[in-house]
Amino acid sequence: MKKNVLIIGAGGVAQVVAHKCAQNNDVLGDIHIASRTVAKCQAIIDSVHAKQNLKNADGVLKGHALDATNVDATAALIRETGSQIVINVGSAFINMPVMSACIATGAAYLDTAIHEEQDKICETPPWYANYEWKRREECEKAGVTAILGAGFDPGVVNAYAKLAVEDYFDKIDSIDIIDINAGSHGKYFATNFDPEINFREFTGTVYSWQNSQWQSNKMFEVKKIWDMPVVGESQTFMTGHDEVHSLSQNLNVPNVRFWMGFGDHYINVFTVLKNIGLLSEKPVLTAEGQEVVPLKVVKACLPDPSSLAPNYTGKTCIGDLVKGTKDGKETEVLIYNVADHKEAYEEVGSQGISYTAGVPPVAAAMLIASGEWDVKKMANIEELPAKPFLHLLNHMGLPTRIKDANGDRDLDFAS
Amino acid sequence: MKKNVLIIGAGGVAQVVAHKCAQNNDVLGDIHIASRTVAKCQAIIDSVHAKQNLKNADGVLKGHALDATNVDATAALIRETGSQIVINVGSAFINMPVMSACIATGAAYLDTAIHEEQDKICETPPWYANYEWKRREECEKAGVTAILGAGFDPGVVNAYAKLAVEDYFDKIDSIDIIDINAGSHGKYFATNFDPEINFREFTGTVYSWQNSQWQSNKMFEVKKIWDMPVVGESQTFMTGHDEVHSLSQNLNVPNVRFWMGFGDHYINVFTVLKNIGLLSEKPVLTAEGQEVVPLKVVKACLPDPSSLAPNYTGKTCIGDLVKGTKDGKETEVLIYNVADHKEAYEEVGSQGISYTAGVPPVAAAMLIASGEWDVKKMANIEELPAKPFLHLLNHMGLPTRIKDANGDRDLDFAS
Repeated sequence: MKKNVLIIGAGGVAQVVAHKCAQNNDVLGDIHIASRTVAKCQAIIDSVHAKQNLKNADGVLKGHALDATNVDATAALIRETGSQIVINVGSAFINMPVMSACIATGAAYLDTAIHEEQDKICETPPWYANYEWKRREECEKAGVTAILGAGFDPGVVNAYAKLAVEDYFDKIDSIDIIDINAGSHGKYFATNFDPEINFREFTGTVYSWQNSQWQSNKMFEVKKIWDMPVVGESQTFMTGHDEVHSLSQNLNVPNVRFWMGFGDHYINVFTVLKNIGLLSEKPVLTAEGQEVVPLKVVKACLPDPSSLAPNYTGKTCIGDLVKGTKDGKETEVLIYNVADHKEAYEEVGSQGISYTAGVPPVAAAMLIASGEWDVKKMANIEELPAKPFLHLLNHMGLPTRIKDANGDRDLDFAS
Repeated sequence: MKKNVLIIGAGGVAQVVAHKCAQNNDVLGDIHIASRTVAKCQAIIDSVHAKQNLKNADGVLKGHALDATNVDATAALIRETGSQIVINVGSAFINMPVMSACIATGAAYLDTAIHEEQDKICETPPWYANYEWKRREECEKAGVTAILGAGFDPGVVNAYAKLAVEDYFDKIDSIDIIDINAGSHGKYFATNFDPEINFREFTGTVYSWQNSQWQSNKMFEVKKIWDMPVVGESQTFMTGHDEVHSLSQNLNVPNVRFWMGFGDHYINVFTVLKNIGLLSEKPVLTAEGQEVVPLKVVKACLPDPSSLAPNYTGKTCIGDLVKGTKDGKETEVLIYNVADHKEAYEEVGSQGISYTAGVPPVAAAMLIASGEWDVKKMANIEELPAKPFLHLLNHMGLPTRIKDANGDRDLDFAS
């Protein structure tokens, strides 16, 4: 049994994590939020109070200034706050130092995205082997629970894959993870996450796992239309994504692919900016002699993603389409969730993309607190039992649905 | 009779001006080129020698470093070089100081585009009244010939309008100036002039002269397809342009409009960049605290316009479609020129857009040298006799053609 949570980061996802931790502080204990800019922590704390989301109203909810690249400072804050669970939802560049601080203190570690280095885009597959998995032994030796990629995708979609293995198939041939945001923010153009990170995701090689080996494609090279529940026919492109790099190694499935929905407008804007060179991380020199990174200027011109929340409408649909055989028969199951931008904003003051990413790590923290997922080693989500996680999420705003030959229905744990 | 030419500026148009002056140095005398960066003058001089374009091979052809915003320095260089004709093809921001230097020394002044101030885009119409025409009296008193807008458009198209008045109509109802570049530079996106100046042209109000009054529109608001000789059906948009602001005041014509050809790709790129805010002249602040003008970063990412010349293919077609009455009958005449990018590059090392802009001021300089256009006052092209100018251009690489009820033919001065 572990308790007291330190949230690292104070962006859109951290806001959701804080609200959800607060709603469950009877289980999770004290809630601390740390960020380089303590004012951003305070803004989140204020929004938790404004929504009256603190279940135990006398519980601790406190902000801290922290440079999370400093392992000693992070370890000191973990000790000072008595935090036994760290939810890292800061930038993708701080995963390794935060993990080091957890190993030093024995606190459980949770993140939602793969570790990245500033100057490297899209390293060799499987991505987890470049940083995270090199530290498996170190975690096990220290008895530290480190759960990787516990957002929605990666995260919940990994649990969907595990559920398919556990309950629906004898043998799986393919897992296609499909991520559709059919929401509308009303701006000419905006990204749902930090534009810099968002564009980094799409400028590298697209790796997929096909016929039990890595395949390389370019972004927007492979297109597919999927007919998805609620959001309908959706244009997607094969995209590189974290979960392909663990599911392919941990489940014995020959085909694992990720498909992200993109409208023609997004593709057009992305293509113009990329072809002109405005998404480059490499500095250019202006006629006046100023050295500037174009991508950082594009980011400065685009809307702040958190500013989109108040007017965001529409729904997201994210799920796993799994194909294989059960009892000798060919079987196809879609395991999915539908979330609503406006409902997310009303509950926690965030848009739906932050909501789907921020709720799952809190469910995971609760399973660490209860001991069910306190495995005292490093694990990707598909290495853990799926049902306790999906059961919790059914009650935390991200219900799972199943669509197969037997119909389209809630995943029901009562039966 | 005037001689010896000082060219101010060392960009793509200046290169054409230098080559054409050199080809006619038996008439024009010594040729001097002045720019802030003397190395750019030298590169032009080298290219003139490489193409053996100096007609009188012993003639003077020399580069000079000059800050043309400094009136005294410019006047001193005019005196030192004994230049009686100044061709100003530097940036649009230096017209007024260069004109002052001409008035101080008695040298004739020629330019190809309207004066602009850095911080003002698209001032009130007629544009010439904001700066140039305020100095009419000053020029006349000093006996200084100052010919405004002597490029192609403005310039040759003004002479086409004057020719229509002189020879083809009793009464003109409308002049539509149509500028089509059907060339291809093989790049994803590039501008034919300095991107900063190019985009400035299209971010302001579009002024046209209709029913004898100014009409305001937005860029890309008014579209028209024209079927033009050689280049065929071409998509154009009503655009603000210098010559509308003088023809409307100097010729008694109720409708003067300018139409620029834009492909869908140009419009798409322009629209994306503009809507995101990347064409803004106002600085933005990056997350790292750097203050940057987005338009200057876009300029730094785009190809240098002069780099396009070697691979530029295809043709331009620019002309005046004039409608009115002659001998009581409704009449329609298209007066136009077709130029070829590759031929321009072979002759003077420049692309066709620079060529059409750079040849006419040299023809104008030759008419000042001969005395025919040495009017000792300020004049726009349509205030001068059109035929000597068009006759010269027929022999300098920009022949005029006429298309009307009598067919499509060369403008023939022999008959």
